[in-house]
Amino acid sequence: MARTLEEIVARFGGDLKGDGRLAIDGLASLEAATPVQLSFLANPKYRSQLAATRAGAVILAADMAAHCPVSAIVAPQPYLYFARVSQWLAETPPPPPGIHPSAVVESVVPASACIGPQCWIGPGVELGENVVVGAQCRIDAGAAIGGCCHLYPGVTLYRDCRIGQRAIVHSGVVIGADGFGFAREAAGAWVKIAQTGRVLIGDDVEIGANTTIDRGALEDTVIEDGVKLDNQIQIAHNVRIGRNTALAGCVGVAGSAKLGARCTVGGGAIILGHLTLADDVHVSAGTLVAKSIATPGSYTGNVPFMAHDDWLKNFARLRHLDAMADRIRALEKRLAELEKKT
Amino acid sequence: MARTLEEIVARFGGDLKGDGRLAIDGLASLEAATPVQLSFLANPKYRSQLAATRAGAVILAADMAAHCPVSAIVAPQPYLYFARVSQWLAETPPPPPGIHPSAVVESVVPASACIGPQCWIGPGVELGENVVVGAQCRIDAGAAIGGCCHLYPGVTLYRDCRIGQRAIVHSGVVIGADGFGFAREAAGAWVKIAQTGRVLIGDDVEIGANTTIDRGALEDTVIEDGVKLDNQIQIAHNVRIGRNTALAGCVGVAGSAKLGARCTVGGGAIILGHLTLADDVHVSAGTLVAKSIATPGSYTGNVPFMAHDDWLKNFARLRHLDAMADRIRALEKRLAELEKKT
Amino acid sequence: MARTLEEIVARFGGDLKGDGRLAIDGLASLEAATPVQLSFLANPKYRSQLAATRAGAVILAADMAAHCPVSAIVAPQPYLYFARVSQWLAETPPPPPGIHPSAVVESVVPASACIGPQCWIGPGVELGENVVVGAQCRIDAGAAIGGCCHLYPGVTLYRDCRIGQRAIVHSGVVIGADGFGFAREAAGAWVKIAQTGRVLIGDDVEIGANTTIDRGALEDTVIEDGVKLDNQIQIAHNVRIGRNTALAGCVGVAGSAKLGARCTVGGGAIILGHLTLADDVHVSAGTLVAKSIATPGSYTGNVPFMAHDDWLKNFARLRHLDAMADRIRALEKRLAELEKKT
Repeated sequence: MARTLEEIVARFGGDLKGDGRLAIDGLASLEAATPVQLSFLANPKYRSQLAATRAGAVILAADMAAHCPVSAIVAPQPYLYFARVSQWLAETPPPPPGIHPSAVVESVVPASACIGPQCWIGPGVELGENVVVGAQCRIDAGAAIGGCCHLYPGVTLYRDCRIGQRAIVHSGVVIGADGFGFAREAAGAWVKIAQTGRVLIGDDVEIGANTTIDRGALEDTVIEDGVKLDNQIQIAHNVRIGRNTALAGCVGVAGSAKLGARCTVGGGAIILGHLTLADDVHVSAGTLVAKSIATPGSYTGNVPFMAHDDWLKNFARLRHLDAMADRIRALEKRLAELEKKT
Repeated sequence: MARTLEEIVARFGGDLKGDGRLAIDGLASLEAATPVQLSFLANPKYRSQLAATRAGAVILAADMAAHCPVSAIVAPQPYLYFARVSQWLAETPPPPPGIHPSAVVESVVPASACIGPQCWIGPGVELGENVVVGAQCRIDAGAAIGGCCHLYPGVTLYRDCRIGQRAIVHSGVVIGADGFGFAREAAGAWVKIAQTGRVLIGDDVEIGANTTIDRGALEDTVIEDGVKLDNQIQIAHNVRIGRNTALAGCVGVAGSAKLGARCTVGGGAIILGHLTLADDVHVSAGTLVAKSIATPGSYTGNVPFMAHDDWLKNFARLRHLDAMADRIRALEKRLAELEKKT
Repeated sequence: MARTLEEIVARFGGDLKGDGRLAIDGLASLEAATPVQLSFLANPKYRSQLAATRAGAVILAADMAAHCPVSAIVAPQPYLYFARVSQWLAETPPPPPGIHPSAVVESVVPASACIGPQCWIGPGVELGENVVVGAQCRIDAGAAIGGCCHLYPGVTLYRDCRIGQRAIVHSGVVIGADGFGFAREAAGAWVKIAQTGRVLIGDDVEIGANTTIDRGALEDTVIEDGVKLDNQIQIAHNVRIGRNTALAGCVGVAGSAKLGARCTVGGGAIILGHLTLADDVHVSAGTLVAKSIATPGSYTGNVPFMAHDDWLKNFARLRHLDAMADRIRALEKRLAELEKKT
């Protein structure tokens, strides 16, 4: 859907430099954009690409405007501006409401909902208005999905779990499977602890493909408003993820961990159980968080990689770090004695 | 379903202190429990919560009984007792037997089985008595599922794979996909090795959401009785997991690794291929196991995290550990010579 | 399907030593093989098993032929030879073409295609000849699947994504979910960036169970010909994986990373975003790649594990590495001064 620069600025604000009648039919990077595409400069690192861009126009901050060889939309946060325009340009009409004849629906659903092919909606399920449930989703008894949610094909929602409004849930997500809770008999056999809590998900949450969120053991697992979860994440029972926190792919959060608001966690990081992370904590990719973090800030615990032969030499020393420390201490003592003598 | 303390003690044993007629309608933590709920004290760390609890009764060990302000069930292993009670209180009637009309069933299944909406059961599948197959499971030709198993919606079982009795398999689990086996041509192209083994799963196994267990290349992948697998675990071809071993979320076990009985593996740990772990080995979260472990015990290989700036300073040194060791050795030599002289 | 050694050599070449009329009905390891099975010796490490094998015949290299106690097929690359034979022996007739009556198919599909039970094929989907789509796959509008592809049950392909010829895609794979792209408002809320690129997958690709590949943000995510992806892998938006590269289970590749051709990445490794890896780069299991790699070779960044008590002593020192380095430098300086004096 083409939009003129004027239309864009009328909707999203910003200061237009250049021909407002220019029609934009898509977005692209500075390098790839064509004269009918809109680009953006958010990271000063890409500033050198600005001079050479063939984009029709560029969204950028005021201090970059003088360097822009084409039309510009000047806005204080170019990346945020770009995000909003991207949604507008990508808007597609929602799928028509109605229940596909191949779906098995055991609850009353609003006329505005779209229930895709081969879905199963169990008894006692509550759906808000304008919900889209993609093909082959399975929504078990007593679950609730708020208005304007979009579930992609193949999402599973276990009984009694709840999702707020405007969630986007991608394929393969499993919400509400049993948490991993067992007591051990003397001989080693595990006795299952019934997992009777639920999963409660707030508004404006997005959940990436094949992510899993377990139901609580006694109390509920809670994902607060505005949380964004990437793909292949595991959220264990009784976890709480604070408002607007974002977790990258392959992160694991163990049981009863509490993450604050506005945290970010890098890919593949592991948060151990029964920990508390303050608001505004940022955990680097590949970091194992084994203690609570009470102070906002960035935390890291991954290791540098190197050429395999260098690694062999250096990392073998890790087994002897304690001995190395002892040897340094011994050297210091001997040297001090020698210094006294001479 | 409410139960009196008398009924609970009659069923599970233990020594009752207080009013046996008290009706319990649920379980809760010491902090959250109300007067109609039963709680437990298993970890001495939570002892301070005992004095303040509002629970109707508490399951605890004999040495704690004197400190309990409310009714108590005294039992030698409070957590195990709690687990058993939790199952009893959470018991729900099984779904009614029968085949949902939307299911496609190409095998003969017992009248006691419950086959959910939109399942596909291929030809030559054997199901035990009282099996529950949730919505949209896919059970390929020749597979077998033992009595009283419960498969949640969306489980995939490839051809010829077998699950023992009383397994609980959560949504998104894939059992029996091809192992990752290829030979390489000189030019770099990979030639697939046919994966002709099966997956054999014992009795009383639980498998968490989106976990994958690959079929063997030539022989079978084997999961022994009583194994508990959390979510998002990857078990490669020809692995064997010993009896009552438990793996936490996001663990990966590479091809042909053999884990002993009663092992535990923490979240996100990786066990490399062709290794053997003895019985009773405990691997910490985030640890990479790159060698066999012949002795029972706890093993760890993760790194401490720290504030990002501290990490920058300290972990950069990892690239120079070998040089540091050399410098310490040189210092020791020079100092020894100096000491000889003076 | 039994084959004689003569038939095998006629088809795949190699030099036959022994009785060509011997019928082989399967493959097995040197240790497990029976007299009607064919085995192979590829890794000199297993040479000691050759003398004791009960196999009917063994595929091996010329320098091992003299040590073989049974019939032999001598070939320069025994493992590759074995791979090819394994495929031939495992060949099964393809499922009969046709659309299962329970499938919902909104596109025209070739008569040679096999569409399994309860599949959903959206509008505008292009399928090549002889495609097999397993039970309950969901193929969204505008997607394309090349000739002779085999999708196992429960695969999801989002709109407009494309798979080349002869791909094997295992259960639970999700191709084309939205990449994880958001801009942040001052107050912390995330604004979604529309993900308008596609996923483009080449020929001869295999994708393991529950692996996810996100669609591009503006441009496409690209998986080149011959790439092999194991289970539970996460490929983020705008990634490019070069020809014949193979990734082991649980690997995560972050946004816009570019991997060269013929790379291998070990299990659980994480490749951070916006990096470039040259051709022929080999990353060890559990390694976090945080910088681009311009030179072919092997790279590692994982840590050795040890008995937990040893780990406590040694790894605690990681927090003081920088201080240790300073103390070594101070010692060197003091010692040098002392040496000057004496």
